[in-house]
Amino acid sequence: MSDPSIRPIPADRIARWDYEADVVVAGFGVAGASAAVAAATAGAQVLVLERTSGWGGAAAMAGGFVYLGGGTPLQTACGFEDSVADMQAFLKAALGPGADEAKIDLYCEGSVDHYRWLADEIGVPFKAEFWGEPGWEPPTDAGLMYSGGENSAPFNTIARPAPRGHVPQMADKQSNGERGGGYMLMKPLVDKAIELGVEAVYDVRVQTLVVDADGRVTGLVAKQYGKTVAVRARTGVVLATGSFAYNGAMVEAFAPRIAGRPAASIEEHDGRAIRMAQALGADLAHMDATEVAFFCDPQLFIRGILVNGRGQRYVPEDTYPGHVGQATLLRNDNQAFLVIDQAAYEEGLTRPTATPMLRMPPTWVCETVTELEAEMGLPAGSLQTTVEVYNTHAANGEDPLLGKKPEWVAPIGSPVAAIDLRGMTGGFTLGGLRTSVDSEVLHVSGDPIPGLFAAGRCTAGISAGGYVSGASLGDGSFFGRRAGASAARN
Amino acid sequence: MSDPSIRPIPADRIARWDYEADVVVAGFGVAGASAAVAAATAGAQVLVLERTSGWGGAAAMAGGFVYLGGGTPLQTACGFEDSVADMQAFLKAALGPGADEAKIDLYCEGSVDHYRWLADEIGVPFKAEFWGEPGWEPPTDAGLMYSGGENSAPFNTIARPAPRGHVPQMADKQSNGERGGGYMLMKPLVDKAIELGVEAVYDVRVQTLVVDADGRVTGLVAKQYGKTVAVRARTGVVLATGSFAYNGAMVEAFAPRIAGRPAASIEEHDGRAIRMAQALGADLAHMDATEVAFFCDPQLFIRGILVNGRGQRYVPEDTYPGHVGQATLLRNDNQAFLVIDQAAYEEGLTRPTATPMLRMPPTWVCETVTELEAEMGLPAGSLQTTVEVYNTHAANGEDPLLGKKPEWVAPIGSPVAAIDLRGMTGGFTLGGLRTSVDSEVLHVSGDPIPGLFAAGRCTAGISAGGYVSGASLGDGSFFGRRAGASAARN
Repeated sequence: MSDPSIRPIPADRIARWDYEADVVVAGFGVAGASAAVAAATAGAQVLVLERTSGWGGAAAMAGGFVYLGGGTPLQTACGFEDSVADMQAFLKAALGPGADEAKIDLYCEGSVDHYRWLADEIGVPFKAEFWGEPGWEPPTDAGLMYSGGENSAPFNTIARPAPRGHVPQMADKQSNGERGGGYMLMKPLVDKAIELGVEAVYDVRVQTLVVDADGRVTGLVAKQYGKTVAVRARTGVVLATGSFAYNGAMVEAFAPRIAGRPAASIEEHDGRAIRMAQALGADLAHMDATEVAFFCDPQLFIRGILVNGRGQRYVPEDTYPGHVGQATLLRNDNQAFLVIDQAAYEEGLTRPTATPMLRMPPTWVCETVTELEAEMGLPAGSLQTTVEVYNTHAANGEDPLLGKKPEWVAPIGSPVAAIDLRGMTGGFTLGGLRTSVDSEVLHVSGDPIPGLFAAGRCTAGISAGGYVSGASLGDGSFFGRRAGASAARN
Repeated sequence: MSDPSIRPIPADRIARWDYEADVVVAGFGVAGASAAVAAATAGAQVLVLERTSGWGGAAAMAGGFVYLGGGTPLQTACGFEDSVADMQAFLKAALGPGADEAKIDLYCEGSVDHYRWLADEIGVPFKAEFWGEPGWEPPTDAGLMYSGGENSAPFNTIARPAPRGHVPQMADKQSNGERGGGYMLMKPLVDKAIELGVEAVYDVRVQTLVVDADGRVTGLVAKQYGKTVAVRARTGVVLATGSFAYNGAMVEAFAPRIAGRPAASIEEHDGRAIRMAQALGADLAHMDATEVAFFCDPQLFIRGILVNGRGQRYVPEDTYPGHVGQATLLRNDNQAFLVIDQAAYEEGLTRPTATPMLRMPPTWVCETVTELEAEMGLPAGSLQTTVEVYNTHAANGEDPLLGKKPEWVAPIGSPVAAIDLRGMTGGFTLGGLRTSVDSEVLHVSGDPIPGLFAAGRCTAGISAGGYVSGASLGDGSFFGRRAGASAARN
């Protein structure tokens, strides 16, 4: 349990620097690569330390959504209008309570510019095609999709909806195996970094920070092939090593509902950078916040009703599936069942999906809801009345209980099935270091820790309680750039 | 926003110590007083620094529950059997997920001894009388009550129920104004401390910690009447300054659902001690956890059904009201309505209660649930079916949906009323410094910070996600004692 190596090392104890640069970036995922490019663009000599043997991090394995809006060229090309104000209003509603409004404001105001940077400066390809089917991500190389429930209740009454999930184009997806849009975000970012002269060293695991007598971070200490190396950062260190989803003790202490169910994350996400900075008195925020995936194909559950362990509906089934995951795990004891009639289930199977492995078979099939309810072990009348109330309104194309859009509302007929989705959730952590809008790591005094910057999922970004797909690659790249620029001019 | 005074001060910069003791305790509430008594009992010279002009803290204003069990003399005298194993099983279920099981184990194993210490050594009076009515606390001077839903679903299927809320006796409650059991816990604790030679200085606000070159805490710096004073602690500092419920920025960053609704707390609970220790690299835990009070008289809501903003039941109405508060605020968007027929409402009003101000009048009264549902603005059929299913089972004395006990189950008749309880919650924070079972403050390295101890609501105690009444005075006094003993022998 004891790990003294996390304690900061006084600079005067470093006899020899093994590496040296203006800006030293820990982690070569989306936040680290964005920071490296921004720092190098600003004229800094940049060194990236990456723990694994290659660049990419969790980002390169991700579907690739970057949450952007306010009227990006891609939104416009796909025929959607958007505004900064609508994007701000939506994100403040969807990512709260407690979301960092200053960060959201800046993120939305800078979103079109950030899109241009990604598309034009970095060369990330986005195909001007909108994907309108329900799902976690497009099964094609389409570049734009709703990825946060913008057009679903209650958000469609709060701000004018626009799709803001921007997906880098991965042509010929089938033949690329597991590579998705995230790879096509990372590849040009890393290429650009190398082109700008950024140096990367792999298989180097950061251990702790080096601090001078005035409390300024001047470097870090790392392990490389079992050897301890000292790395000097002349102007700044950028921490970008990802979340703490794979640090069991931290998850237990801060986000226990997600304990034992990490998903969409990588094992390197052990929270080390958060601990290193905490040891310097860095502040934290939103350590309980989690992204929660829901392991069922939206093409199925949008065509039925989701009920909790008491047979009650609890979430509009046409919303962003991540909201379904959060509602299930965090507010309904991880209890969910999909109730769907045979016709709707079979129709769902005919629709395109990026996640065919999430099309599970029915657990129970019955002629009537009364029988189904009994087989599921629910109290007599509980599911029956839920379906009865739903069907009554659905006959008029309405869902006054949860506001599912008319196009997805239809009475549930017979035969009727239920899929047991209890425990079918997983996710990653969203909390971490508290940073300024310029990606300075903040001390509990409220002041920046000199020389120390951070971005990506080792920080508390734009998300607090809620989440939308694209928020992590989005704020990781956006505030990663700001981290790199801040570290370079520091 | 910037507060440099939180940064630790190197011991070699202290020119003169204004106060000096073996053990210095910050805060004279239940944790601080217990620490002071234990340290003095161990032979230490003890100085308590209290921010206000008198002892007591939040504890002296509290109802006074101390959560104790495993077969205390009071439980036995009231005719209840209990065991350490049942208490452990209950608390692990009720205080999780993520509760510190080592702390719970020790707390339960030491509970009978802790009762004896309070009753026999300190002289806290407990009257051997059980109070069995629903409510937040006894309206009389009875000493024992269920205070955690032990005898309600689902906990009554997990462990053998026993009442464990031990309330110090406040004779002649009426004439004592706002003084409740908490006062009668604090008064003898403080008397004992003074008797043992503990010195207390009031109107002293701790600012930050003093640390020697080896990282050992050797004192603290405080403000006294505008002047900065240095206080030396020869063997240890004990932090016991309470929660961060009144630190708006911390609540926003860590527990935003409770933002703007502090309750059962005092304004001095500003999280200062947590920040002081964080500045030294202290670790945190469960910063999102909150106690949540529900502002309605349990004598009323136990006799009806509580429904959320969709007209659905969500919590057994006969459980500990704090579970109702958590379920409402944290899992049902702070939306609650009590649906109750006239006969049950009027019966509730005839029953004894300690909280008459929580007996609000009906918001709507109707002849039928159909009318009521319409007046409440709920979707047609939603509340009707909820009542229909409840009534069907209630006719058999059953509640298969939520497991309310037969004695509280009865069909809802006419006329029927609803009380609007939306937003009627408030509470305090439960997260804080991570401490060992010996109340050492733990550094993020996992090692204790030498010379630094903490207890009470500035620490993450036995509670994580859940809460029971008596957990705060309980773990504050129990781990306060351990803090004092550890600091004395340090």
